[in-house]
Amino acid sequence: MRRAKPKSQEYLTPESQKALADRLARAEGHLRSIRQMVLDHRCADDILIQVAAVKAALNHFASIIVETEMKACVEACMPGDADERLGRVTKALAALLKS
Amino acid sequence: MRRAKPKSQEYLTPESQKALADRLARAEGHLRSIRQMVLDHRCADDILIQVAAVKAALNHFASIIVETEMKACVEACMPGDADERLGRVTKALAALLKS
Repeated sequence: MRRAKPKSQEYLTPESQKALADRLARAEGHLRSIRQMVLDHRCADDILIQVAAVKAALNHFASIIVETEMKACVEACMPGDADERLGRVTKALAALLKS
Repeated sequence: MRRAKPKSQEYLTPESQKALADRLARAEGHLRSIRQMVLDHRCADDILIQVAAVKAALNHFASIIVETEMKACVEACMPGDADERLGRVTKALAALLKS
């Protein structure tokens, strides 16, 4: 006998919400420290390497949203019919690919 | 008679320092607002589009550093001999390309 389809995961559980918010808070702190590097006249290459690190952290944040949250969001709370929801998802992914 | 080679631009003039620091402060504020979106349970695609906007802002910041500051930094304040300085520049650009 086939098992019933499992209930899809809840969108942004309290745990994942906290983990994602903490990631963004760390990125904010990182940007603040880069701002201080600019004010301290630090070398351009050091500044760029830290900017690359923040961009990598944002890529990681986005990959978590896409991989573990997007499906639940589409099923549970995204407005619109199936076509509109597909359009919203592809628009967001295209924006990320351009950035 | 050829003109003397112009003095290279100063690295991070007070004006460009302020403009760059302001850009980073805006990106920090933007990340703070995305953190609030996560806490407000906003749709995943809306969150991703804002993350893409912050990444684009960081790309713009980095392009300004590369285009208008890197040369002055290499000439005026980057430590090491010519080979070491070239190594520093290429390492920073490679880090950005990976991010």
